[in-house]
Amino acid sequence: MKNKGILIVISGPSGAGKGTVCKQLLDNNTYWLSVSATTRTSRTGEEEGKSYYFLTKEEFNTKIEQGDFLEYAENYGNMYGTPRSKVMEKLDEGQVVILEIDIQGALKVKESFPDGIFIFLLPPSMEELKHRIINRASETPESLMTRFKSAYKEINYISKYNYAVINDTVDSAVAKVESIITAENCRVDRMKEKILDSKEGLIHEQLYD
Amino acid sequence: MKNKGILIVISGPSGAGKGTVCKQLLDNNTYWLSVSATTRTSRTGEEEGKSYYFLTKEEFNTKIEQGDFLEYAENYGNMYGTPRSKVMEKLDEGQVVILEIDIQGALKVKESFPDGIFIFLLPPSMEELKHRIINRASETPESLMTRFKSAYKEINYISKYNYAVINDTVDSAVAKVESIITAENCRVDRMKEKILDSKEGLIHEQLYD
Repeated sequence: MKNKGILIVISGPSGAGKGTVCKQLLDNNTYWLSVSATTRTSRTGEEEGKSYYFLTKEEFNTKIEQGDFLEYAENYGNMYGTPRSKVMEKLDEGQVVILEIDIQGALKVKESFPDGIFIFLLPPSMEELKHRIINRASETPESLMTRFKSAYKEINYISKYNYAVINDTVDSAVAKVESIITAENCRVDRMKEKILDSKEGLIHEQLYD
Repeated sequence: MKNKGILIVISGPSGAGKGTVCKQLLDNNTYWLSVSATTRTSRTGEEEGKSYYFLTKEEFNTKIEQGDFLEYAENYGNMYGTPRSKVMEKLDEGQVVILEIDIQGALKVKESFPDGIFIFLLPPSMEELKHRIINRASETPESLMTRFKSAYKEINYISKYNYAVINDTVDSAVAKVESIITAENCRVDRMKEKILDSKEGLIHEQLYD
């Protein structure tokens, strides 16, 4: 029997700092980041299979029909999706697979992947979230208010997640996510497989008689 | 509402290294170690309330009747028990309470405290467990065999636990237990209370409408 990896879904409202946390998490560890497929054209510097898998609309639709997306959505006329086959391949290799995704996407992934570990990244406070949205956006006050309201509303979905991590500093948020992954690897259900895999016949025989 | 602490039960077969791991865990952190009550007489150097709570048989029996033990057992004619009131007091203060206990005791604690986090400490291998039991014990081959068999059998109870940690080195086992505690503190169910507790009214209102 093969050790299976863990799917770690890092999600949260826009402005929570998902991108920064995931970047440092991947710099520190040998986790594998799931790469999205998209129908939009590639920009300068973007690499096929690293930034995105660039697909034609026909290719994308075929994959939808084949059920090869854990989730997909349209954004400004372009399609974006998480390829199931790639994720499954890495999980079968026993890897930790990181999926950085918005809340709607995470909820869809959870439907087909309830065993994934869903981490909700929170800004240090709603005030801070407000600042981050203001600093980042070049929008009208009206559209800003829409984004605040949407962020507030989205936080209600936290109850669908396994863990919540407050992104007060990137270092501490990353350390917490690393601890969550270590702890999940120690769960008895996962350990059982490892123990079965080991050559310690005595444990093997005695543990499951 | 008060943040409640976490009860961490560190358990496992005799020879797995519970004592060494707990000692380092408490040296590194501000966790609170549950102190057992006993009817045995104190030995030189043992301190009341630190090594044990030393009780008379009458006092111990009264506490049994009052339901003040999370678990208790007789060992070589003396009674040993885990005082519920002390554990509850520290949990109410929001502390991480560590309980170092054998497997039978842990299973009893679980009956009255299913929300505790139960960690099963494993020796690196059954061969290593055998060595540890041999090195420690000054027993006849027959009684050694009884201890091996009992240790093998006890490992079957691992499925009642939340986590399993292999004690290959003390440092790595302690780091894993620390990660488990960090992760448990990030569980959404626990975080909800913290968020409710915080002064961030906006999160408060939006999170539970």
